[in-house]
Amino acid sequence: MSLRTEPRLITLEGGEGAGKTTVLTALRDALLESGHEVVSTREPGGTPLAEQIRTLLLAGDHEPPAPETELLLMFAARAQHVRETVLPALRRGAFVLSDRFTDSSYAYQGGARGLDPAFIAELERRAVGIRPGLTLLLDVPVAHGRERTRGRDVYPDRIEREQDAFFEKVRAAFRERAQAEPGRIRVIDATPAPERVVAAAVGALRAYLETLR
Amino acid sequence: MSLRTEPRLITLEGGEGAGKTTVLTALRDALLESGHEVVSTREPGGTPLAEQIRTLLLAGDHEPPAPETELLLMFAARAQHVRETVLPALRRGAFVLSDRFTDSSYAYQGGARGLDPAFIAELERRAVGIRPGLTLLLDVPVAHGRERTRGRDVYPDRIEREQDAFFEKVRAAFRERAQAEPGRIRVIDATPAPERVVAAAVGALRAYLETLR
Ligand SMILES: Nc1ncnc2c1ncn2[C@@H]1O[C@H](COP(=O)(O)OP(=O)(O)OP(=O)(O)O)[C@@H](O)[C@H]1O
Ligand SMILES: Nc1ncnc2c1ncn2[C@@H]1O[C@H](COP(=O)(O)OP(=O)(O)OP(=O)(O)O)[C@@H](O)[C@H]1O
Ligand SMILES: [Mg+2]
Ligand SMILES: [Mg+2]
Repeated sequence: MSLRTEPRLITLEGGEGAGKTTVLTALRDALLESGHEVVSTREPGGTPLAEQIRTLLLAGDHEPPAPETELLLMFAARAQHVRETVLPALRRGAFVLSDRFTDSSYAYQGGARGLDPAFIAELERRAVGIRPGLTLLLDVPVAHGRERTRGRDVYPDRIEREQDAFFEKVRAAFRERAQAEPGRIRVIDATPAPERVVAAAVGALRAYLETLR
Repeated sequence: MSLRTEPRLITLEGGEGAGKTTVLTALRDALLESGHEVVSTREPGGTPLAEQIRTLLLAGDHEPPAPETELLLMFAARAQHVRETVLPALRRGAFVLSDRFTDSSYAYQGGARGLDPAFIAELERRAVGIRPGLTLLLDVPVAHGRERTRGRDVYPDRIEREQDAFFEKVRAAFRERAQAEPGRIRVIDATPAPERVVAAAVGALRAYLETLR
Protein backbone atom coordinates (compact mmCIF):
# COMPACT_ATOMS: atom_id res chain seq x y z
CA MET A 1 0.00 0.00 0.00
CA SER A 2 1.51 3.34 -0.96
CA LEU A 3 0.47 6.86 -0.02
CA ARG A 4 -2.28 8.51 -2.03
CA THR A 5 -2.65 12.29 -1.91
CA GLU A 6 -6.21 13.39 -1.06
CA PRO A 7 -6.63 16.93 -2.42
CA ARG A 8 -9.62 17.68 -0.19
CA LEU A 9 -7.88 16.64 3.00
CA ILE A 10 -6.37 19.75 4.58
CA THR A 11 -4.46 19.61 7.84
CA LEU A 12 -3.34 22.14 10.43
CA GLU A 13 -0.07 21.48 12.21
CA GLY A 14 2.08 23.25 14.77
CA GLY A 15 3.16 23.23 18.38
CA GLU A 16 1.15 24.08 21.48
CA GLY A 17 -0.71 27.38 21.23
CA ALA A 18 0.31 28.02 17.63
CA GLY A 19 -3.31 28.81 16.79
CA LYS A 20 -4.37 25.63 14.92
CA THR A 21 -7.88 25.53 16.34
CA THR A 22 -8.38 29.27 15.75
CA VAL A 23 -7.24 29.02 12.13
CA LEU A 24 -9.24 25.84 11.49
CA THR A 25 -12.47 27.66 12.29
CA ALA A 26 -11.61 30.42 9.83
CA LEU A 27 -10.73 27.92 7.08
CA ARG A 28 -14.00 26.10 7.67
CA ASP A 29 -15.94 29.34 7.27
CA ALA A 30 -14.08 30.19 4.05
CA LEU A 31 -14.87 26.75 2.59
CA LEU A 32 -18.52 26.94 3.65
CA GLU A 33 -18.84 30.38 2.03
CA SER A 34 -17.62 28.83 -1.22
CA GLY A 35 -20.45 26.28 -0.94
CA HIS A 36 -18.41 23.22 0.07
CA GLU A 37 -19.37 20.58 2.57
CA VAL A 38 -16.78 20.62 5.38
CA VAL A 39 -16.04 18.03 8.03
CA SER A 40 -13.94 19.47 10.88
CA THR A 41 -12.08 16.94 12.93
CA ARG A 42 -9.04 16.52 15.14
CA GLU A 43 -6.33 14.08 16.15
CA PRO A 44 -5.82 12.10 18.18
CA GLY A 45 -9.56 11.49 18.00
CA GLY A 46 -12.32 12.01 15.47
CA THR A 47 -14.37 8.83 16.17
CA PRO A 48 -15.82 7.51 19.45
CA LEU A 49 -13.11 4.82 19.73
CA ALA A 50 -10.32 7.19 18.66
CA GLU A 51 -11.45 9.72 21.27
CA GLN A 52 -11.17 6.99 23.92
CA ILE A 53 -7.64 6.25 22.68
CA ARG A 54 -6.97 10.00 23.00
CA THR A 55 -7.98 9.82 26.65
CA LEU A 56 -5.53 6.96 27.23
CA LEU A 57 -2.81 9.02 25.53
CA LEU A 58 -3.31 12.32 27.31
CA ALA A 59 -4.72 11.53 30.72
CA GLY A 60 -5.63 8.44 32.62
CA ASP A 61 -5.17 6.74 35.93
CA HIS A 62 -2.39 4.50 34.63
CA GLU A 63 1.37 4.56 34.07
CA PRO A 64 2.62 6.76 31.18
CA PRO A 65 3.00 5.01 27.81
CA ALA A 66 6.47 4.10 26.60
CA PRO A 67 7.43 6.01 23.40
CA GLU A 68 6.61 2.99 21.22
CA THR A 69 3.25 2.57 22.97
CA GLU A 70 2.49 6.25 22.41
CA LEU A 71 3.36 5.94 18.71
CA LEU A 72 1.21 2.84 18.21
CA LEU A 73 -1.75 4.35 20.07
CA MET A 74 -1.49 7.47 17.89
CA PHE A 75 -1.55 5.34 14.73
CA ALA A 76 -4.33 3.09 16.06
CA ALA A 77 -6.44 6.22 16.56
CA ARG A 78 -5.42 7.54 13.13
CA ALA A 79 -6.19 4.25 11.33
CA GLN A 80 -9.67 4.36 12.84
CA HIS A 81 -10.16 8.08 12.14
CA VAL A 82 -9.19 7.68 8.49
CA ARG A 83 -11.51 4.71 7.89
CA GLU A 84 -14.53 5.89 9.89
CA THR A 85 -14.51 9.64 9.41
CA VAL A 86 -12.02 10.97 6.85
CA LEU A 87 -12.48 8.58 3.91
CA PRO A 88 -16.31 8.48 4.06
CA ALA A 89 -16.38 12.30 4.00
CA LEU A 90 -13.88 12.54 1.13
CA ARG A 91 -15.84 9.91 -0.83
CA ARG A 92 -18.94 12.06 -0.80
CA GLY A 93 -16.95 15.08 -1.97
CA ALA A 94 -16.59 16.94 1.33
CA PHE A 95 -13.49 18.80 2.44
CA VAL A 96 -11.95 17.45 5.62
CA LEU A 97 -10.13 19.87 7.92
CA SER A 98 -8.06 18.08 10.53
CA ASP A 99 -6.52 19.73 13.58
CA ARG A 100 -3.30 17.64 13.47
CA PHE A 101 -2.60 14.54 11.36
CA THR A 102 0.38 12.30 10.49
CA ASP A 103 2.94 15.16 10.46
CA SER A 104 2.38 15.49 14.22
CA SER A 105 3.61 11.92 14.74
CA TYR A 106 6.81 12.65 12.83
CA ALA A 107 7.30 15.80 14.95
CA TYR A 108 6.31 14.53 18.42
CA GLN A 109 7.04 10.78 18.42
CA GLY A 110 9.83 11.06 15.81
CA GLY A 111 11.62 14.39 16.31
CA ALA A 112 10.95 14.86 20.02
CA ARG A 113 10.77 11.29 21.37
CA GLY A 114 13.48 10.03 19.02
CA LEU A 115 11.63 7.13 17.36
CA ASP A 116 12.87 6.07 13.92
CA PRO A 117 11.15 8.04 11.10
CA ALA A 118 11.39 4.91 8.92
CA PHE A 119 9.11 3.11 11.38
CA ILE A 120 6.68 6.03 11.32
CA ALA A 121 6.74 6.00 7.50
CA GLU A 122 5.95 2.28 7.55
CA LEU A 123 2.96 2.87 9.83
CA GLU A 124 1.82 5.73 7.61
CA ARG A 125 1.96 3.55 4.47
CA ARG A 126 0.39 0.51 6.07
CA ALA A 127 -2.24 1.95 8.40
CA VAL A 128 -3.06 5.41 7.01
CA GLY A 129 -2.53 5.20 3.25
CA ILE A 130 -3.40 8.84 2.50
CA ARG A 131 -1.71 12.19 2.85
CA PRO A 132 -3.25 15.68 2.79
CA GLY A 133 -3.22 17.83 -0.35
CA LEU A 134 -2.46 20.89 1.77
CA THR A 135 -0.92 21.28 5.22
CA LEU A 136 -0.59 24.62 6.95
CA LEU A 137 2.22 24.63 9.48
CA LEU A 138 1.61 27.38 12.02
CA ASP A 139 5.07 28.27 13.20
CA VAL A 140 5.69 30.23 16.38
CA PRO A 141 8.57 30.35 18.89
CA VAL A 142 7.99 27.82 21.66
CA ALA A 143 7.81 30.31 24.53
CA HIS A 144 5.38 32.47 22.59
CA GLY A 145 2.99 29.57 21.88
CA ARG A 146 3.08 28.33 25.46
CA GLU A 147 2.42 31.84 26.74
CA ARG A 148 -0.85 31.81 24.77
CA THR A 149 -2.11 28.60 26.28
CA ARG A 150 -1.12 29.54 29.82
CA GLY A 151 -4.50 30.94 30.84
CA ARG A 152 -6.45 28.16 29.15
CA ASP A 153 -4.50 25.10 30.28
CA VAL A 154 -5.25 25.04 33.97
CA TYR A 155 -4.87 21.26 33.73
CA PRO A 156 -2.23 20.65 31.05
CA ASP A 157 -2.33 17.13 29.61
CA ARG A 158 0.56 14.65 29.73
CA ILE A 159 2.22 15.99 26.57
CA GLU A 160 1.63 19.65 27.41
CA ARG A 161 3.57 19.05 30.65
CA GLU A 162 6.80 18.35 28.69
CA GLN A 163 9.79 20.73 28.97
CA ASP A 164 10.60 23.48 26.46
CA ALA A 165 13.49 21.38 25.05
CA PHE A 166 10.89 18.83 23.95
CA PHE A 167 8.84 21.46 22.12
CA GLU A 168 11.96 22.92 20.50
CA LYS A 169 12.53 19.49 18.96
CA VAL A 170 8.90 19.34 17.86
CA ARG A 171 9.24 22.72 16.16
CA ALA A 172 12.52 21.81 14.44
CA ALA A 173 11.02 18.55 13.13
CA PHE A 174 7.97 20.34 11.73
CA ARG A 175 10.15 22.90 9.95
CA GLU A 176 12.35 20.18 8.53
CA ARG A 177 9.32 18.40 7.09
CA ALA A 178 8.10 21.66 5.56
CA GLN A 179 11.46 22.13 3.87
CA ALA A 180 11.35 18.59 2.50
CA GLU A 181 7.79 18.95 1.15
CA PRO A 182 7.38 22.60 0.17
CA GLY A 183 4.61 21.77 -2.32
CA ARG A 184 2.31 20.32 0.31
CA ILE A 185 3.32 22.09 3.53
CA ARG A 186 2.99 25.89 3.68
CA VAL A 187 4.65 27.53 6.67
CA ILE A 188 2.59 30.35 8.15
CA ASP A 189 4.25 32.72 10.59
CA ALA A 190 1.89 32.43 13.55
CA THR A 191 3.54 35.13 15.67
CA PRO A 192 1.35 38.11 14.59
CA ALA A 193 -2.16 38.89 15.88
CA PRO A 194 -4.90 36.36 15.10
CA GLU A 195 -6.49 38.46 12.28
CA ARG A 196 -3.17 38.52 10.44
CA VAL A 197 -2.46 34.81 10.91
CA VAL A 198 -5.99 33.93 9.82
CA ALA A 199 -5.67 36.19 6.75
CA ALA A 200 -2.43 34.49 5.73
CA ALA A 201 -3.96 31.03 6.24
CA VAL A 202 -7.14 31.83 4.31
CA GLY A 203 -4.99 33.34 1.54
CA ALA A 204 -2.98 30.12 1.32
CA LEU A 205 -6.20 28.11 1.24
CA ARG A 206 -7.68 30.20 -1.60
CA ALA A 207 -4.48 29.94 -3.62
CA TYR A 208 -4.56 26.18 -3.12
CA LEU A 209 -8.22 25.92 -4.15
CA GLU A 210 -7.32 27.70 -7.40
CA THR A 211 -4.88 24.90 -8.20
CA LEU A 212 -7.67 22.31 -7.78
CA ARG A 213 -9.97 23.76 -10.42
CA MET B 1 16.29 -3.75 16.27
CA SER B 2 16.17 -7.51 15.76
CA LEU B 3 14.41 -10.19 17.81
CA ARG B 4 16.19 -11.52 20.87
CA THR B 5 15.09 -14.85 22.32
CA GLU B 6 14.36 -14.68 26.05
CA PRO B 7 14.76 -18.21 27.45
CA ARG B 8 12.73 -17.46 30.59
CA LEU B 9 9.78 -16.05 28.71
CA ILE B 10 7.28 -18.88 28.18
CA THR B 11 3.98 -18.32 26.37
CA LEU B 12 0.71 -20.21 26.09
CA GLU B 13 -1.16 -19.98 22.81
CA GLY B 14 -4.29 -21.46 21.32
CA GLY B 15 -7.88 -20.69 20.35
CA GLU B 16 -10.88 -20.04 22.59
CA GLY B 17 -11.31 -22.65 25.33
CA ALA B 18 -8.13 -24.54 24.45
CA GLY B 19 -7.15 -24.52 28.13
CA LYS B 20 -4.43 -21.86 28.19
CA THR B 21 -5.39 -20.40 31.54
CA THR B 22 -5.77 -23.86 33.09
CA VAL B 23 -2.34 -24.98 31.85
CA LEU B 24 -0.68 -21.72 32.83
CA THR B 25 -1.60 -22.26 36.45
CA ALA B 26 -0.07 -25.75 36.38
CA LEU B 27 3.15 -24.48 34.77
CA ARG B 28 3.39 -21.76 37.36
CA ASP B 29 3.12 -24.33 40.16
CA ALA B 30 5.78 -26.53 38.53
CA LEU B 31 8.18 -23.58 38.28
CA LEU B 32 7.49 -22.47 41.85
CA GLU B 33 8.16 -26.01 43.10
CA SER B 34 11.55 -25.84 41.41
CA GLY B 35 12.27 -22.67 43.38
CA HIS B 36 11.92 -20.11 40.59
CA GLU B 37 10.31 -16.70 40.80
CA VAL B 38 7.35 -16.65 38.41
CA VAL B 39 5.43 -13.70 37.01
CA SER B 40 2.10 -14.78 35.49
CA THR B 41 0.62 -12.36 33.03
CA ARG B 42 -1.70 -12.16 30.04
CA GLU B 43 -2.29 -10.35 26.76
CA PRO B 44 -3.77 -8.10 25.76
CA GLY B 45 -3.06 -6.58 29.16
CA GLY B 46 -0.47 -7.02 31.87
CA THR B 47 -0.09 -3.37 32.96
CA PRO B 48 -2.73 -0.83 34.04
CA LEU B 49 -2.54 1.00 30.68
CA ALA B 50 -2.44 -2.23 28.66
CA GLU B 51 -5.51 -3.51 30.54
CA GLN B 52 -7.33 -0.32 29.55
CA ILE B 53 -6.31 -0.94 25.93
CA ARG B 54 -7.70 -4.47 26.38
CA THR B 55 -11.04 -2.98 27.37
CA LEU B 56 -11.08 -0.84 24.21
CA LEU B 57 -10.30 -3.97 22.16
CA LEU B 58 -12.83 -6.36 23.62
CA ALA B 59 -15.75 -4.26 24.82
CA GLY B 60 -16.65 -0.64 24.90
CA ASP B 61 -19.43 1.74 24.00
CA HIS B 62 -17.84 2.67 20.67
CA GLU B 63 -17.71 1.45 17.08
CA PRO B 64 -15.67 -1.74 16.44
CA PRO B 65 -12.02 -1.20 15.50
CA ALA B 66 -10.96 -1.63 11.87
CA PRO B 67 -8.51 -4.57 11.44
CA GLU B 68 -5.53 -2.19 11.30
CA THR B 69 -6.75 -0.41 14.44
CA GLU B 70 -7.11 -3.74 16.22
CA LEU B 71 -3.57 -4.75 15.22
CA LEU B 72 -2.03 -1.46 16.37
CA LEU B 73 -3.92 -1.53 19.68
CA MET B 74 -2.69 -5.10 20.27
CA PHE B 75 0.90 -4.02 19.65
CA ALA B 76 0.52 -0.83 21.69
CA ALA B 77 -0.58 -2.99 24.63
CA ARG B 78 2.25 -5.46 23.95
CA ALA B 79 4.93 -2.74 23.70
CA GLN B 80 3.81 -1.49 27.09
CA HIS B 81 3.54 -4.96 28.61
CA VAL B 82 7.05 -5.90 27.49
CA ARG B 83 8.64 -2.73 28.84
CA GLU B 84 6.73 -2.41 32.11
CA THR B 85 6.19 -6.02 33.16
CA VAL B 86 8.04 -8.65 31.11
CA LEU B 87 11.54 -7.16 30.80
CA PRO B 88 11.81 -5.99 34.43
CA ALA B 89 10.84 -9.51 35.59
CA LEU B 90 13.28 -11.21 33.21
CA ARG B 91 16.05 -8.82 34.28
CA ARG B 92 15.78 -9.94 37.88
CA GLY B 93 15.88 -13.60 36.81
CA ALA B 94 12.19 -14.47 37.09
CA PHE B 95 10.32 -16.70 34.67
CA VAL B 96 7.47 -14.95 32.88
CA LEU B 97 4.42 -17.02 31.88
CA SER B 98 2.19 -15.17 29.44
CA ASP B 99 -1.33 -16.24 28.51
CA ARG B 100 -1.00 -15.22 24.81
CA PHE B 101 1.79 -13.16 23.22
CA THR B 102 2.89 -12.15 19.71
CA ASP B 103 1.90 -15.47 18.06
CA SER B 104 -1.73 -14.56 18.78
CA SER B 105 -1.40 -11.45 16.59
CA TYR B 106 -0.10 -13.55 13.70
CA ALA B 107 -3.02 -15.96 14.17
CA TYR B 108 -5.89 -13.54 14.84
CA GLN B 109 -4.97 -10.29 13.06
CA GLY B 110 -2.85 -12.04 10.41
CA GLY B 111 -4.40 -15.43 9.65
CA ALA B 112 -8.01 -14.64 10.52
CA ARG B 113 -8.33 -10.91 9.69
CA GLY B 114 -6.01 -11.13 6.69
CA LEU B 115 -3.47 -8.46 7.60
CA ASP B 116 -0.01 -8.80 6.02
CA PRO B 117 2.35 -10.95 8.17
CA ALA B 118 5.24 -8.77 6.99
CA PHE B 119 3.60 -5.80 8.72
CA ILE B 120 3.14 -7.85 11.88
CA ALA B 121 6.80 -8.92 11.72
CA GLU B 122 7.82 -5.28 11.40
CA LEU B 123 5.79 -4.37 14.50
CA GLU B 124 7.28 -7.33 16.36
CA ARG B 125 10.84 -6.26 15.52
CA ARG B 126 10.30 -2.57 16.20
CA ALA B 127 7.96 -2.54 19.19
CA VAL B 128 8.45 -5.89 20.95
CA GLY B 129 12.04 -6.92 20.27
CA ILE B 130 11.88 -10.23 22.14
CA ARG B 131 10.48 -13.67 21.51
CA PRO B 132 9.76 -16.49 23.98
CA GLY B 133 12.18 -19.36 24.49
CA LEU B 134 9.26 -21.77 24.69
CA THR B 135 5.70 -21.57 23.41
CA LEU B 136 3.10 -24.23 24.11
CA LEU B 137 0.39 -24.29 21.47
CA LEU B 138 -2.73 -25.90 22.90
CA ASP B 139 -4.45 -27.32 19.86
CA VAL B 140 -8.08 -28.38 19.90
CA PRO B 141 -10.82 -28.55 17.25
CA VAL B 142 -12.74 -25.28 17.13
CA ALA B 143 -16.14 -26.70 18.08
CA HIS B 144 -14.60 -28.59 20.99
CA GLY B 145 -12.91 -25.49 22.43
CA ARG B 146 -16.01 -23.35 22.07
CA GLU B 147 -18.11 -26.01 23.74
CA ARG B 148 -15.86 -25.69 26.80
CA THR B 149 -16.34 -21.96 27.14
CA ARG B 150 -20.09 -22.08 26.53
CA GLY B 151 -21.08 -22.16 30.19
CA ARG B 152 -18.52 -19.56 31.20
CA ASP B 153 -18.98 -16.96 28.48
CA VAL B 154 -22.44 -15.67 29.25
CA TYR B 155 -21.25 -12.35 27.82
CA PRO B 156 -18.77 -13.25 25.08
CA ASP B 157 -16.44 -10.37 24.13
CA ARG B 158 -16.19 -8.84 20.66
CA ILE B 159 -13.68 -11.42 19.36
CA GLU B 160 -15.41 -14.39 21.01
CA ARG B 161 -18.55 -13.45 19.06
CA GLU B 162 -16.82 -14.24 15.71
CA GLN B 163 -18.03 -17.14 13.54
CA ASP B 164 -16.46 -20.62 13.48
CA ALA B 165 -14.84 -19.87 10.08
CA PHE B 166 -12.84 -17.14 11.82
CA PHE B 167 -11.57 -19.54 14.48
CA GLU B 168 -10.71 -22.16 11.87
CA LYS B 169 -8.37 -19.60 10.31
CA VAL B 170 -6.92 -18.82 13.73
CA ARG B 171 -6.23 -22.51 14.33
CA ALA B 172 -4.68 -23.04 10.89
CA ALA B 173 -2.40 -20.00 11.36
CA PHE B 174 -1.22 -21.22 14.77
CA ARG B 175 -0.43 -24.68 13.37
CA GLU B 176 1.45 -23.16 10.45
CA ARG B 177 3.60 -21.14 12.82
CA ALA B 178 4.34 -24.24 14.90
CA GLN B 179 5.48 -26.07 11.75
CA ALA B 180 7.74 -23.16 10.80
CA GLU B 181 9.30 -22.92 14.29
CA PRO B 182 9.31 -26.46 15.72
CA GLY B 183 12.20 -25.66 18.07
CA ARG B 184 10.32 -22.95 19.93
CA ILE B 185 6.66 -23.93 19.53
CA ARG B 186 5.54 -27.30 20.96
CA VAL B 187 2.05 -28.39 19.91
CA ILE B 188 0.09 -30.01 22.72
CA ASP B 189 -3.05 -31.94 21.89
CA ALA B 190 -5.56 -30.18 24.12
CA THR B 191 -8.49 -32.49 23.36
CA PRO B 192 -8.01 -34.95 26.29
CA ALA B 193 -9.10 -34.38 29.88
CA PRO B 194 -7.39 -31.54 31.80
CA GLU B 195 -5.08 -33.83 33.84
CA ARG B 196 -3.68 -35.30 30.65
CA VAL B 197 -3.22 -31.95 28.91
CA VAL B 198 -1.59 -30.50 32.01
CA ALA B 199 0.72 -33.53 32.29
CA ALA B 200 1.82 -33.14 28.66
CA ALA B 201 2.42 -29.41 29.16
CA VAL B 202 4.38 -29.84 32.40
CA GLY B 203 6.39 -32.60 30.69
CA ALA B 204 7.26 -30.24 27.83
CA LEU B 205 8.23 -27.55 30.35
CA ARG B 206 10.53 -29.90 32.28
CA ALA B 207 12.20 -31.10 29.09
CA TYR B 208 12.74 -27.47 28.12
CA LEU B 209 14.19 -26.55 31.52
CA GLU B 210 16.73 -29.37 31.08
CA THR B 211 17.99 -27.66 27.90
CA LEU B 212 18.58 -24.42 29.86
CA ARG B 213 20.98 -25.89 32.38
N1 LIG C 1 -2.21 34.75 16.48
C1 LIG C 1 -2.55 34.73 17.78
N2 LIG C 1 -2.13 35.71 18.63
C2 LIG C 1 -2.47 35.67 19.93
N3 LIG C 1 -3.25 34.74 20.48
C3 LIG C 1 -3.70 33.77 19.68
C4 LIG C 1 -3.36 33.69 18.30
N4 LIG C 1 -3.96 32.60 17.76
C5 LIG C 1 -4.63 32.00 18.77
N5 LIG C 1 -4.48 32.71 19.91
C6 LIG C 1 -4.98 32.37 21.24
O1 LIG C 1 -4.00 31.50 21.79
C7 LIG C 1 -4.60 30.38 22.39
C8 LIG C 1 -4.20 29.12 21.61
O2 LIG C 1 -4.82 29.13 20.31
P1 LIG C 1 -5.39 27.80 19.68
O3 LIG C 1 -6.15 27.04 20.70
O4 LIG C 1 -6.05 28.16 18.39
O5 LIG C 1 -3.99 27.10 19.38
P2 LIG C 1 -3.72 25.56 19.10
O6 LIG C 1 -2.56 25.52 18.15
O7 LIG C 1 -4.97 24.90 18.69
O8 LIG C 1 -3.25 25.11 20.52
P3 LIG C 1 -3.25 23.62 21.13
O9 LIG C 1 -2.12 22.93 20.45
O10 LIG C 1 -2.97 23.83 22.58
O11 LIG C 1 -4.60 23.04 20.85
C9 LIG C 1 -6.09 30.63 22.35
O12 LIG C 1 -6.45 31.25 23.56
C10 LIG C 1 -6.26 31.59 21.20
O13 LIG C 1 -7.40 32.44 21.35
N1 LIG D 1 -8.61 -30.39 28.77
C1 LIG D 1 -9.80 -29.92 29.13
N2 LIG D 1 -10.92 -30.66 29.01
C2 LIG D 1 -12.12 -30.19 29.37
N3 LIG D 1 -12.32 -28.97 29.84
C3 LIG D 1 -11.24 -28.17 29.98
C4 LIG D 1 -9.92 -28.59 29.63
N4 LIG D 1 -9.07 -27.58 29.87
C5 LIG D 1 -9.80 -26.55 30.34
N5 LIG D 1 -11.11 -26.92 30.42
C6 LIG D 1 -12.22 -26.09 30.85
O1 LIG D 1 -12.62 -25.38 29.67
C7 LIG D 1 -12.84 -24.01 29.96
C8 LIG D 1 -11.80 -23.19 29.17
O2 LIG D 1 -10.50 -23.42 29.74
P1 LIG D 1 -9.46 -22.22 29.89
O3 LIG D 1 -10.15 -21.00 30.44
O4 LIG D 1 -8.26 -22.73 30.59
O5 LIG D 1 -9.13 -22.04 28.35
P2 LIG D 1 -8.49 -20.79 27.64
O6 LIG D 1 -7.68 -21.31 26.50
O7 LIG D 1 -7.77 -19.94 28.63
O8 LIG D 1 -9.78 -20.08 27.10
P3 LIG D 1 -9.96 -18.54 26.67
O9 LIG D 1 -9.24 -18.39 25.37
O10 LIG D 1 -11.44 -18.40 26.49
O11 LIG D 1 -9.38 -17.70 27.78
C9 LIG D 1 -12.72 -23.87 31.45
O12 LIG D 1 -14.01 -23.95 31.99
C10 LIG D 1 -11.83 -25.02 31.86
O13 LIG D 1 -12.11 -25.45 33.17
MG1 LIG E 1 -6.10 23.35 19.53
MG1 LIG F 1 -8.08 -17.99 29.29
